Amino acid sequence: MPCLAWAGYSGLDYFARRNLLNRDLYDMPRINAQRLMSDLRSLAEFGKFGTGVDRISFSPADLEARAWLLGRMQEAGLDATIDCVGNVRGLTPGARRSVVIGSHTDSVPKGGWLDGAMGVIYGLEVARSRMESGRSVELGVDVVSFQDEEGSYFPCLGSRSFCDELGDPDLERTRAATGESIRHAIARAGYGGAPWRLDRSRHVAFLEAHIEQGPRLEAQRCRIGVVTGIVGIRRLKISSDGQADHAGTTPMAMRKDAARPLFELAHRVHAEFPKLASLDTVWNIGSLSIQPGAANVVPSGAEMIVEWRDTSIEKLDEIEQALMKWIGELNQRPGVALASAPIARIKPTLMAEALQASIEASARAEGASLMRMPSGAGHDAMVVGHHLPAGMVFIPSIGGRSHDIVEDTSEEDIVLGCEVMASVVERLETA
Amino acid sequence: MPCLAWAGYSGLDYFARRNLLNRDLYDMPRINAQRLMSDLRSLAEFGKFGTGVDRISFSPADLEARAWLLGRMQEAGLDATIDCVGNVRGLTPGARRSVVIGSHTDSVPKGGWLDGAMGVIYGLEVARSRMESGRSVELGVDVVSFQDEEGSYFPCLGSRSFCDELGDPDLERTRAATGESIRHAIARAGYGGAPWRLDRSRHVAFLEAHIEQGPRLEAQRCRIGVVTGIVGIRRLKISSDGQADHAGTTPMAMRKDAARPLFELAHRVHAEFPKLASLDTVWNIGSLSIQPGAANVVPSGAEMIVEWRDTSIEKLDEIEQALMKWIGELNQRPGVALASAPIARIKPTLMAEALQASIEASARAEGASLMRMPSGAGHDAMVVGHHLPAGMVFIPSIGGRSHDIVEDTSEEDIVLGCEVMASVVERLETA
Repeated sequence: MPCLAWAGYSGLDYFARRNLLNRDLYDMPRINAQRLMSDLRSLAEFGKFGTGVDRISFSPADLEARAWLLGRMQEAGLDATIDCVGNVRGLTPGARRSVVIGSHTDSVPKGGWLDGAMGVIYGLEVARSRMESGRSVELGVDVVSFQDEEGSYFPCLGSRSFCDELGDPDLERTRAATGESIRHAIARAGYGGAPWRLDRSRHVAFLEAHIEQGPRLEAQRCRIGVVTGIVGIRRLKISSDGQADHAGTTPMAMRKDAARPLFELAHRVHAEFPKLASLDTVWNIGSLSIQPGAANVVPSGAEMIVEWRDTSIEKLDEIEQALMKWIGELNQRPGVALASAPIARIKPTLMAEALQASIEASARAEGASLMRMPSGAGHDAMVVGHHLPAGMVFIPSIGGRSHDIVEDTSEEDIVLGCEVMASVVERLETA
Repeated sequence: MPCLAWAGYSGLDYFARRNLLNRDLYDMPRINAQRLMSDLRSLAEFGKFGTGVDRISFSPADLEARAWLLGRMQEAGLDATIDCVGNVRGLTPGARRSVVIGSHTDSVPKGGWLDGAMGVIYGLEVARSRMESGRSVELGVDVVSFQDEEGSYFPCLGSRSFCDELGDPDLERTRAATGESIRHAIARAGYGGAPWRLDRSRHVAFLEAHIEQGPRLEAQRCRIGVVTGIVGIRRLKISSDGQADHAGTTPMAMRKDAARPLFELAHRVHAEFPKLASLDTVWNIGSLSIQPGAANVVPSGAEMIVEWRDTSIEKLDEIEQALMKWIGELNQRPGVALASAPIARIKPTLMAEALQASIEASARAEGASLMRMPSGAGHDAMVVGHHLPAGMVFIPSIGGRSHDIVEDTSEEDIVLGCEVMASVVERLETA
């Protein structure tokens, strides 16, 4: 069936207008599972660290991995280059329209072998399988490994560049922990030419597969997670001023203890957030520091970061209002001086409903158990999803572990995820 | 009146048996105020740091200060030496019995000019004034600057040695932050000979004057604090085990957050200790650390130190039992794993009742406003008080400040405190 009416970008409507469900026309294997696993294992050799990888963006291992990936794309017949920020992209030649499939090949320090790498190799495998079977003419696959998703320099650097969200000052000012600017890292890597940009006349959707990085699929015995959205993140830093006094000689009533109101606030967060939360809301107090930090000195200063995440902006707002109210109440007390400052306000990204439906249908057709779930972690789809209909597939993380060399997923689940991805592309083609 | 019946050490009874109150026989100035202030200011030149001193024990400034003090004692006619741990002591020659008066001349880094130095110079001034007026035969004054009260190597090193509480292993094993052992520091300083020890056939009491190091006297407009006892200190370290998980991808119900139970416990300490506390009880949570300490990682470990102080062992016990009960209750909850370990158990030291009465009577005779109060900080009297009847006089700290170069006290209060001290010795002489 020809690909109809790709009349430019029309948001979610394009998919919503079509019935993508209940199609199961293709029952032959859509991908080469052996080749998929072989490429994944080859990629894991770059920056190999025990059972994982240490492949920070712009590190020698990362540069070598990108060069290898470029070669694999070219061997597959894709029109492949590395753009000026280091995005490795391979376009299906001859395709008038395409689905962008990919993720990232950079890792956190001492990270896992799958993480984003799996989503990139899914893209490669789906693209070349479609070319081999002659399915690539009407709807091609453009494969991408976005640069620095993990943010060693700047989180989602590559997908931000793809969506034209980066300015020149970002490249100059933003520096890695080593002090190196992005601009310098790019020059060191020898990357150049034009940035690869989202092309509304060509790109119809973005699909990203990723390991779940959490325990929910495993706990629910589901093999496929249909991502409903990527949660928004709010972080509020609460600073407390007090006065350092001798903790033996200063009567309780004369103290200005900076830590005490934060203990009360932290306790209240954990005690009362459950009443405010949705089923998917999560929150964390992972950081609290006390100055000077001695057992026998009344705290002169204290600082705490409260983080909460949800796919609903209304829920994020509601929680923030409660928190600000509690801070205000504490500030009414004598000797309490709390100040708050938002240090992160990342908005939620909803995945396209039609793509969620398509992923669900594809998984069902494969007989895979599935669940819909938000992504609690950030991904490139978080950036791209604001510019192009985006869909995300999660596959289980063994023990819920990620960002660690113990991260792993069974081979069966890896292969199933790629089959589902290929099936989703077929559904888009025939939509 | 001759000094009667000094039949060895008999605890508090000796003073209790005598009516030390309501004597005001001596209305002439007992000390030379100008000489007192001049010596205090000379001493403050050693390790001078802004308006304070930096005179850590065994530092060059400390060694020079001790040599100067030795010289001033000898000039005053005292039988003076520096013993093998660095205690500088000057005995009143010809006295059959003596009151030990002193404190310490070492300071914390960037500390105040008075702190313990004042109590040492009080001893020197009272001893030489008494010798000058011929009052020293029956009851002399033995002046001392105890080594390292501040504990750069070992808290109250000098007074512990005086009370024979130090073993050879302490001298070998105990090291400064620099890694130097006490033994090495002693050798470097060139100190030697026998340790100066408490002599029950000679020493009838220990008197220590000190700045309050707190705000109570100033707040109550009192010029003299009669110390009732030095508080006992308990410190409990509470460690919490959890599991580091991604704070976005791990559902709340599946977390083992190590910090959360500590926030609840900390809040409960501050909310419920007031119901358990005596008027003088103080407590502090000055240290809480979280591992790994990132806003987006569920805490895998957390550690908190709760400290509380009181002069009553029963009160210290009662509070500890409540704390242990609350920890036990938290440990009943799923996912909570708290462990506790006492890291300090310093017993209270009560000051001799008769000496408190004598200090109070002396202050009243001088027309000084006074209050009885515990010492929330440790002092050499904390060690000596377990071996010899001890009394402590506090004088006001301006703004309650101490252990800082801004520490200060008005000259009038400094002189008054020394007059009171001299008066107390006279009361002991005539008792």
